[in-house]
Amino acid sequence: MSLPRTIEWLGDLNGHVRLIDQTLLPGRLAFVDCSTVEQIWEAIKVLRVRGAPAIGIAGAMGLVLAIRQLSPLEAEAGFFAELERQRDYLASCRPTAVNLRWALDRLVRAAREHRGLGVLPLQLLLWEEARKIRDEDAAACRAIGEHGAHLIPDGGGVLTHCNAGSLATAELGTALALMYVAHERGRRFQVFADETRPLLQGARLTAWELQQAGIAVTVICDNMAATVMKRGQVQCVVTGADRIAANGDTANKIGTYGVALLARAHRIPFYVAAPVSTFDLNCPSGEQIPIEERAADEVRQIGDRIITPAEATVYNPAFDVTPAEFITAFISERGVFPASEIRQRFH
Amino acid sequence: MSLPRTIEWLGDLNGHVRLIDQTLLPGRLAFVDCSTVEQIWEAIKVLRVRGAPAIGIAGAMGLVLAIRQLSPLEAEAGFFAELERQRDYLASCRPTAVNLRWALDRLVRAAREHRGLGVLPLQLLLWEEARKIRDEDAAACRAIGEHGAHLIPDGGGVLTHCNAGSLATAELGTALALMYVAHERGRRFQVFADETRPLLQGARLTAWELQQAGIAVTVICDNMAATVMKRGQVQCVVTGADRIAANGDTANKIGTYGVALLARAHRIPFYVAAPVSTFDLNCPSGEQIPIEERAADEVRQIGDRIITPAEATVYNPAFDVTPAEFITAFISERGVFPASEIRQRFH
Repeated sequence: MSLPRTIEWLGDLNGHVRLIDQTLLPGRLAFVDCSTVEQIWEAIKVLRVRGAPAIGIAGAMGLVLAIRQLSPLEAEAGFFAELERQRDYLASCRPTAVNLRWALDRLVRAAREHRGLGVLPLQLLLWEEARKIRDEDAAACRAIGEHGAHLIPDGGGVLTHCNAGSLATAELGTALALMYVAHERGRRFQVFADETRPLLQGARLTAWELQQAGIAVTVICDNMAATVMKRGQVQCVVTGADRIAANGDTANKIGTYGVALLARAHRIPFYVAAPVSTFDLNCPSGEQIPIEERAADEVRQIGDRIITPAEATVYNPAFDVTPAEFITAFISERGVFPASEIRQRFH
Repeated sequence: MSLPRTIEWLGDLNGHVRLIDQTLLPGRLAFVDCSTVEQIWEAIKVLRVRGAPAIGIAGAMGLVLAIRQLSPLEAEAGFFAELERQRDYLASCRPTAVNLRWALDRLVRAAREHRGLGVLPLQLLLWEEARKIRDEDAAACRAIGEHGAHLIPDGGGVLTHCNAGSLATAELGTALALMYVAHERGRRFQVFADETRPLLQGARLTAWELQQAGIAVTVICDNMAATVMKRGQVQCVVTGADRIAANGDTANKIGTYGVALLARAHRIPFYVAAPVSTFDLNCPSGEQIPIEERAADEVRQIGDRIITPAEATVYNPAFDVTPAEFITAFISERGVFPASEIRQRFH
């Protein structure tokens, strides 16, 4: 894998965040440099950076950009007030993925644990912590891949929905990490990538990533998943997650729940790959997960082409919740385990 | 309903076929006039006219355009040779919907039954027969609507896939006929229209038709169907069909099979509405139905926008087969009946 980094901090505390502008893929691989928290907020909002782990990293780096502006002579009370205000501002950007809130809270907690150090040391400490979140995510993705690679069927097919790849994380991905590691180990398999309407992350991003890595990928429209399953072309399904409740109910890109039902109907195992930061043990079940609804125009038009009648009523939830009963197992950096083991794995 | 006719013959035998160019909807309501069989073939191929019943009508009218060119002084043997050659040419255009072949064979049979009349009377007879096929389809659609309207839940929601409406038939439609008649009878309900990738017949055509008729319609991406079902917003699913085998297995637009599985998982009845001409009793089961695969670029690009990496591998079947076991009942002009009654209804 020689993909460029999805998101990274360049330079010292006075540097900036560089991220791949994923809205331009697959047509063009281009980067955006962000020097302010507002630029990061916008990049998350319009999905220049997306994927639960990646927006966690972006949020953390955005929070550093926000508080580095404070004068080192500022009183600590002012620092903490600003830190929390900016944390809330960034957390409001996208509600469903828990990783964003998780990363922001981690920075706030780290700062609180070092009260009294003074503003500049706190700024440096958070800068360090944000970069650590990126590096830990890269390591978690590698571990997920190592734990789950054996689930990818040699000589078979695997179906994935949306993009849970390198572009959704620091590197390597969650669902796609299994495939990258299986590929490294010499397994040969075929990936079916649901195009994933409305924003086509499967057609645009998953297909692009896998092509770069030399893994055979076939793009299908979302409504073709049942047919490739019926034809026996899929031996397992792997997706990522935006938030996993304590009981195993899993929020992920809209359409995931349907794919899970189709997998069950065809007796195909359905796996969810996600780092520990995606598990939200404060959330008892899927019913408590907030589901983001996005603008109707995401469905009404594709590029410049308007595909519905003007003013057509549209329903556009960005995520759905797959009940734990339809998930064969989870793959995290702590191993492969069923929903019933989530609580014990996290204590 | 004051929609213009989907397809009609204008003028006498020297007239022409006028059809709505459905590739331009919903942006523009425009018509194409066809005076040659080649124009009809092209219109069917690129989906200016689509929907199983409508392409049956188009095929029949196209066959009349083909054989009206023959001189009235032509020998009958030459007439029949040309009739069969043109029948095969038109039938080759789209393989899955049985209505095309059915309508063409009906004209050939009608001609054979009147051997010896001479070329001009045969030309006039086939012209009459083609227009009769259109009128009978309109009557069948009305009857389907009358038989099935009570299945549309007053105060509830109904989901449909692709377009099985006025635009897919002579008028009124098959699946949508139930909704139009229910609407006439004062029922109030909400229609969820799957956008139906890749060619978006739901977003473009179903939403347009229902809006024109004043029926509340919400467009969803195909991968949102499971979510609206889970939320309790759908009390029944109704689709059309391209071919129904003797055992009830049903070929319809790609994605229908998945919707049927999702309906079953949510205990929602799944109905198929189609005229008698869509039932193919010569076809024992779905396994014998040929499935058309269409160009990869239909998936790779939308309008001018390329949505996958260049040369991405794509799988693009235009239809799938829903096994009879997932179909609660069929609605045809002969009433509402389960798959197990198909044979007795057609004898």
